[in-house]
Amino acid sequence: MPALTHLNRKGEAAMVDVSAKPPVLREAVAEGRILLQPATLDLIRSNQVKKGDVLSIARIAGIQAAKQTQYLIPLCHQIPLSKVQLDFELRSKAVHITATAITVAPTGVEMEALTAVSVAALTIYDMCKAADKKMRIEGVKLVSKTKGTSAT
Amino acid sequence: MPALTHLNRKGEAAMVDVSAKPPVLREAVAEGRILLQPATLDLIRSNQVKKGDVLSIARIAGIQAAKQTQYLIPLCHQIPLSKVQLDFELRSKAVHITATAITVAPTGVEMEALTAVSVAALTIYDMCKAADKKMRIEGVKLVSKTKGTSAT
Amino acid sequence: MPALTHLNRKGEAAMVDVSAKPPVLREAVAEGRILLQPATLDLIRSNQVKKGDVLSIARIAGIQAAKQTQYLIPLCHQIPLSKVQLDFELRSKAVHITATAITVAPTGVEMEALTAVSVAALTIYDMCKAADKKMRIEGVKLVSKTKGTSAT
Amino acid sequence: MPALTHLNRKGEAAMVDVSAKPPVLREAVAEGRILLQPATLDLIRSNQVKKGDVLSIARIAGIQAAKQTQYLIPLCHQIPLSKVQLDFELRSKAVHITATAITVAPTGVEMEALTAVSVAALTIYDMCKAADKKMRIEGVKLVSKTKGTSAT
Amino acid sequence: MPALTHLNRKGEAAMVDVSAKPPVLREAVAEGRILLQPATLDLIRSNQVKKGDVLSIARIAGIQAAKQTQYLIPLCHQIPLSKVQLDFELRSKAVHITATAITVAPTGVEMEALTAVSVAALTIYDMCKAADKKMRIEGVKLVSKTKGTSAT
Amino acid sequence: MPALTHLNRKGEAAMVDVSAKPPVLREAVAEGRILLQPATLDLIRSNQVKKGDVLSIARIAGIQAAKQTQYLIPLCHQIPLSKVQLDFELRSKAVHITATAITVAPTGVEMEALTAVSVAALTIYDMCKAADKKMRIEGVKLVSKTKGTSAT
Repeated sequence: MPALTHLNRKGEAAMVDVSAKPPVLREAVAEGRILLQPATLDLIRSNQVKKGDVLSIARIAGIQAAKQTQYLIPLCHQIPLSKVQLDFELRSKAVHITATAITVAPTGVEMEALTAVSVAALTIYDMCKAADKKMRIEGVKLVSKTKGTSAT
Repeated sequence: MPALTHLNRKGEAAMVDVSAKPPVLREAVAEGRILLQPATLDLIRSNQVKKGDVLSIARIAGIQAAKQTQYLIPLCHQIPLSKVQLDFELRSKAVHITATAITVAPTGVEMEALTAVSVAALTIYDMCKAADKKMRIEGVKLVSKTKGTSAT
Repeated sequence: MPALTHLNRKGEAAMVDVSAKPPVLREAVAEGRILLQPATLDLIRSNQVKKGDVLSIARIAGIQAAKQTQYLIPLCHQIPLSKVQLDFELRSKAVHITATAITVAPTGVEMEALTAVSVAALTIYDMCKAADKKMRIEGVKLVSKTKGTSAT
Repeated sequence: MPALTHLNRKGEAAMVDVSAKPPVLREAVAEGRILLQPATLDLIRSNQVKKGDVLSIARIAGIQAAKQTQYLIPLCHQIPLSKVQLDFELRSKAVHITATAITVAPTGVEMEALTAVSVAALTIYDMCKAADKKMRIEGVKLVSKTKGTSAT
Repeated sequence: MPALTHLNRKGEAAMVDVSAKPPVLREAVAEGRILLQPATLDLIRSNQVKKGDVLSIARIAGIQAAKQTQYLIPLCHQIPLSKVQLDFELRSKAVHITATAITVAPTGVEMEALTAVSVAALTIYDMCKAADKKMRIEGVKLVSKTKGTSAT
Repeated sequence: MPALTHLNRKGEAAMVDVSAKPPVLREAVAEGRILLQPATLDLIRSNQVKKGDVLSIARIAGIQAAKQTQYLIPLCHQIPLSKVQLDFELRSKAVHITATAITVAPTGVEMEALTAVSVAALTIYDMCKAADKKMRIEGVKLVSKTKGTSAT
């Protein structure tokens, strides 16, 4: 049975030691969605052509959150992100969010991608909360994770 | 139809001006859950009697994230939190998370409660990701929001 | 001759004690501009109708920076901002930036407004630097500062 | 005509992907100045022999801000700075500020140098604002940018 | 026997709820010292007349750390500090550090004063570590704590 | 006589330039202790079997502080930590704290280990301060520092 790598043999919190792992190209893709009422989606849609729209702000919030993952998730390593990308799709009842995080580092970036999705969804929530009292964030999960060969 | 309060008439991002609102006792409760495989839940359960367990670390991460909501969600105000509390319940297929945020402030704290739930869920994800590849965060939403009379 | 309030009698750095000052409504307006080549201004202009445009991102960066002034400027107090607003005007050779900061607090918010202008200008610089090698930030200064009567 | 690299083909905010670029020695020098009244310059000058003087604090603020550029400028990468240096020159009507940032990284550090100059200028502003109501930050720009050959 | 206020009845981490406590003038004084070799103390002493000296930088670091106590100590409340002051005394074998924190808030600021002392000591350590391999931080403790009557 | 490396020839604050130093495996161990009354130690001991206990929270606070050393200590470099580990030992009159920091970087991590010890001690202080008015942090110092051969 797999153990929890973030607890040591005594059950204490522990960062996994990555000092022996070489920096390698790594990518993680995560997704999630925020369910909104159709009227709220219309509001988002109609603002999209203007500056300062909801999705543009959620995108920036997600990118900035990805860069701060190490300070939010206690046992995460400090990873220099090569790129973070947020994509939004307006569906019939939800905004679907996809985040891609890329790095050249000794450990993976799934937490960075998942954090970007979560904070982008929370930002949409914040901006629409006066208009919609029934929002819900669903299906935040990892879509894929890839790893290249050693960069050195 | 309600408008998006965080965009001004030109559709530009705007913080809502709260300078005329007196500080009032406010509470918000949010919830969410992270779906895990039964074996992962057993791992969390068996570690609970030890120091450094998963839920204890997720609790601290959630409390600290609530205090940083203003830096994560671009248009949130800086709110001094009187209390943040995180409660976890181990169910058959998920850890259920409830966060309560309390303040005496001119504006509400639902974003603080929702951020606490999200970051606690992400922390559980991080600590279990070596053991469980199928985790999913679901049902992050506001449960209740109350507001007292003026504190002044 | 006026003294430097942030240095005590021994010439040491000192935060000004504001504990005896009541919280009062205060507003500060600051401005500045970033000089760009006409072709760069055209690029910004043509992107304005799309999501994610330069000014929208600079606006968010300015708002977030205002909320972090206390951590950037060593002797600034922690001020809860009631509102931050950034306005941009595309002129013939520059983007003109105006920032308004509002608070109910024992001390003023000119540093918050000035920080918002500076970081918004730096963000425009960052986003245009591949296209324009001659940008320059000019005229960052306070425009006005007002103070209401005691809020208590 | 050069495009804006921080917007993708759809006009959305995007971090430039630097994962294929090797870490290389890079240096950037930026400058700016803050215009002060002669009496204020005298105050700064006379405090320079004491501990806690204005320029010493502005220097620390600039160095610390350079290390936080990635959190201030939304699309900046997280760059480990090898060195940051701030130099001040008291001229007849201004404090002239020069910042040098050095790294071994896949992308440049001009934003780090420009941020150091801006925050150092804002710190001087903050410390002199009780004595001088006419300060103005001018001429914040890049002076030079150099890049070595691959470090690997 | 007194209980640990930061653990609830189930032994879980908890922020103490301060929402019912009115904001009151509060002051805390903390102290500590860093033991150094006499030669290192001479180096600090001889630099004191120059800009950028060790104690001036430690002072700024202590002030800034006090303002970030809430993010360093997980269960601390966000307290707006009215003033932070750091005093240093060069003794025969140590730099003695005193920090004073003042606020008008519903809860005390001893952690802010203690954090200021600790980070000032660590900053002196950092700046002297090339010259002195035997430094030691000792006696970090609260000196006094006072509380005024309700400010409202 | 050794000079202070963090001051340049003019006595100004300066980050040491590490751009010519290759990334190398480095480890630092620091220690310290917080003196508590026996009754307080009993309280900590009896909570250790529960979730949310004092030492578990101090451990997380120490790990997170280590990752933020660069923002707390003005002239520290941004170091990506490969691992941070905190160990606690309950002795008759104190909690003894040991922190280990590991990196692959151009410069050492003693400040990260010392910061982890200090913030863990402060967190214990915070959590026990309602029960114990006589706590004192003592003996914060470096235990060992090792450096491997070039990783490149």
